[in-house]
Amino acid sequence: MLEELKEQVYQANMELPRYGLITFTWGNVSGIDRESGLFVIKPSGVDYDKLTPEDMVVMNLQGNKVEGSYKPSSDTATHLELYKAFKEIGGIVHTHSSYATSWAQAGRSIPCYGTTHADYIYGEVPCIRCLTKEEIEDAYEENTGHLIVNELKRLNKDPMAVPAVLCKNHGPFVWGKNAMDAVHNAVVLEEVAKMAYRTEIIYPKAAPAPSELQDKHYFRKHGINAYYGQ
Amino acid sequence: MLEELKEQVYQANMELPRYGLITFTWGNVSGIDRESGLFVIKPSGVDYDKLTPEDMVVMNLQGNKVEGSYKPSSDTATHLELYKAFKEIGGIVHTHSSYATSWAQAGRSIPCYGTTHADYIYGEVPCIRCLTKEEIEDAYEENTGHLIVNELKRLNKDPMAVPAVLCKNHGPFVWGKNAMDAVHNAVVLEEVAKMAYRTEIIYPKAAPAPSELQDKHYFRKHGINAYYGQ
Amino acid sequence: MLEELKEQVYQANMELPRYGLITFTWGNVSGIDRESGLFVIKPSGVDYDKLTPEDMVVMNLQGNKVEGSYKPSSDTATHLELYKAFKEIGGIVHTHSSYATSWAQAGRSIPCYGTTHADYIYGEVPCIRCLTKEEIEDAYEENTGHLIVNELKRLNKDPMAVPAVLCKNHGPFVWGKNAMDAVHNAVVLEEVAKMAYRTEIIYPKAAPAPSELQDKHYFRKHGINAYYGQ
Amino acid sequence: MLEELKEQVYQANMELPRYGLITFTWGNVSGIDRESGLFVIKPSGVDYDKLTPEDMVVMNLQGNKVEGSYKPSSDTATHLELYKAFKEIGGIVHTHSSYATSWAQAGRSIPCYGTTHADYIYGEVPCIRCLTKEEIEDAYEENTGHLIVNELKRLNKDPMAVPAVLCKNHGPFVWGKNAMDAVHNAVVLEEVAKMAYRTEIIYPKAAPAPSELQDKHYFRKHGINAYYGQ
Repeated sequence: MLEELKEQVYQANMELPRYGLITFTWGNVSGIDRESGLFVIKPSGVDYDKLTPEDMVVMNLQGNKVEGSYKPSSDTATHLELYKAFKEIGGIVHTHSSYATSWAQAGRSIPCYGTTHADYIYGEVPCIRCLTKEEIEDAYEENTGHLIVNELKRLNKDPMAVPAVLCKNHGPFVWGKNAMDAVHNAVVLEEVAKMAYRTEIIYPKAAPAPSELQDKHYFRKHGINAYYGQ
Repeated sequence: MLEELKEQVYQANMELPRYGLITFTWGNVSGIDRESGLFVIKPSGVDYDKLTPEDMVVMNLQGNKVEGSYKPSSDTATHLELYKAFKEIGGIVHTHSSYATSWAQAGRSIPCYGTTHADYIYGEVPCIRCLTKEEIEDAYEENTGHLIVNELKRLNKDPMAVPAVLCKNHGPFVWGKNAMDAVHNAVVLEEVAKMAYRTEIIYPKAAPAPSELQDKHYFRKHGINAYYGQ
Repeated sequence: MLEELKEQVYQANMELPRYGLITFTWGNVSGIDRESGLFVIKPSGVDYDKLTPEDMVVMNLQGNKVEGSYKPSSDTATHLELYKAFKEIGGIVHTHSSYATSWAQAGRSIPCYGTTHADYIYGEVPCIRCLTKEEIEDAYEENTGHLIVNELKRLNKDPMAVPAVLCKNHGPFVWGKNAMDAVHNAVVLEEVAKMAYRTEIIYPKAAPAPSELQDKHYFRKHGINAYYGQ
Repeated sequence: MLEELKEQVYQANMELPRYGLITFTWGNVSGIDRESGLFVIKPSGVDYDKLTPEDMVVMNLQGNKVEGSYKPSSDTATHLELYKAFKEIGGIVHTHSSYATSWAQAGRSIPCYGTTHADYIYGEVPCIRCLTKEEIEDAYEENTGHLIVNELKRLNKDPMAVPAVLCKNHGPFVWGKNAMDAVHNAVVLEEVAKMAYRTEIIYPKAAPAPSELQDKHYFRKHGINAYYGQ
């Protein structure tokens, strides 16, 4: 079932080592079929060089495994909550990519210092708080999903315009129109995190790009007046 | 038409991923045929691994497409202004290369800290201001070109001796004798930006190289008394 | 003799250049067969591209060579002391990997800033003092082993939960269930050292991850309630 | 003539791009045949991927070309002065490798922060002053050689124990027993420069390794009591 989606999710997972976003098995990508309400996710802790499209696990939105010989990623419950809350998204990726994770460990949101960031992400990438002791002990991965959803709402962010958050002391969750688009955004996030880090070293008082420049670049690539690409 | 120039511009574009200057499609190279007054530029947002020499777009200096099935790079109007103002240049490149872009995001010109820089670029690489709200909303890419030209004039810089600028909160524009020479200068700029960054970390009070040393190295490679190379 | 262990130790050594943990011959991996009380270690100063499984040297726990045409690694006496003191470990690796060694040169323990660290290492990675003049001049490598053992005891650390130390002004020693697991931990250490470095640059007052989050991640992967992986 | 030496010097030059020590043609290696008093050096500004052993240029110690169709490296006069003054050395390399050059641009000597450094270089790597205006304008490359020689003498350094200097605002010159050994030392220098940079970021008050530890590691690899390697 869902052979095409499995292939897409498999290919998206394999992009993670190609783009240098992961070490060992520290990442997972999923993609959803909105019609059937089923999503496909990487199995937990399986080496990338042994992974095949058939190894992908099929889950429903009640959190039950529908197909697959492996256990799904340990972060499955987080993906599930994001799919339930953000109807527009079609793919999710979690990594420990080095620069984005360093911002998460520092507990800081990534300011929008330039057009590379503004081309893809509207405004800063929020760093959201750690879970409380109770939230961790109760249902850690599910509560991670709830917190991401609640914080984006509280910050009044459109998940399609801000397709990434940093979970404090943990790492990034990133999403997109589909699995491959989510990985694309994860690559952007890592590059943006790297340049923001360097920007602050070069000039500690650096300020975010002017809002009119951010708007210009974001809307050059997104929305009804976009004119970038073919 | 212009098959040889298309091939050169194609090859120059393909150097960008080889030298690690770009992520995805975040860059573009063009080259001009001064005799016909036509220039050739990368199409907008096409993946590098799908690009062919035939995909290059031919433009005239009035900004009209003369040949090509794709839309030209979204930065075409910037290239156009530079070609019109700087008669000596034969190629232009724009990237979001990581270190150079970080200096641009920090809003700082890159000081000439050593001979690696002085071998290719005479004096600092200027960081020029953001466009105003009006300049952005009116004709963003064309105004970017005007600003680069005006700022170089105001700073009294010879565009052949200073073949690069940083656009604040955006990234570098670099040029040269032809498309491949422009890419060569973009590689130099990234390397110089990286070493200047590290230099200031090692010694925050570092001063530019003495002017006599800068002169020696620049004129060892350029002008009538050059003696580097064959 | 011990052909299978030699092959494992050879393969584990060859992972060091693959993961970028070494320059030239600056590293060594060993593995022990607890039944026979013999351990297998890389020969001293032999290039990795010339190494074969047969070149591995077999040592006993009295420090005598049992088999092998080469001299064993100059750090053999350190490995020996660790095997004698820590009965649970099956493999040891020493490298000069760049970030971990930089922390060692700075003389600082690596704080646990996030879940990447907590997934593998319980609490900070201790940086232990330099040997004294007398300890250096007497039996340097053996005394390095004694010091690691004594410091872990003094700090009340379980060597299986803290599988790495930094020797001040020198570099890391890392261990694990077997030779390959030790190398796996050395890769983790280098990645964790890199992200801790960047974390402090992004926010100099960064604090370690909350203890409940560290516990959650460590015990998600280790012990009786682990649920990561298949 | 000197076919074997040409081959060695060619191979040593080709190691520079392999080890990431150079961009474009920014480096040169030479080797000397002490019996004939002739040395072999890379031609000036020739691309590495076009270089062949036959392209190497043969020079005598009077600074005259003895054989070769190309002009020798523009730094030939510096190599010449080092060969004349330091009778023990058999090979020299000059690069603009990124971290070592950044220390040179910062105008700082590289402290010996650990055993990686002490294994190869006895004490700090000196950064020597810029040439004066007169020294630059008169005979720049020859005077660079004189200055390196004079400064090492003034600092009372044995060129075999300190096989590298940084020329302020320029970059490193490194030497060794032969051309390949010089390149080996250049790789060490770059790695040591990188880790010293990171060490100071992790702990700005970091102190050099204790002298007894430096001695132990240097003499473990060098001199009559060495016991590293086979």
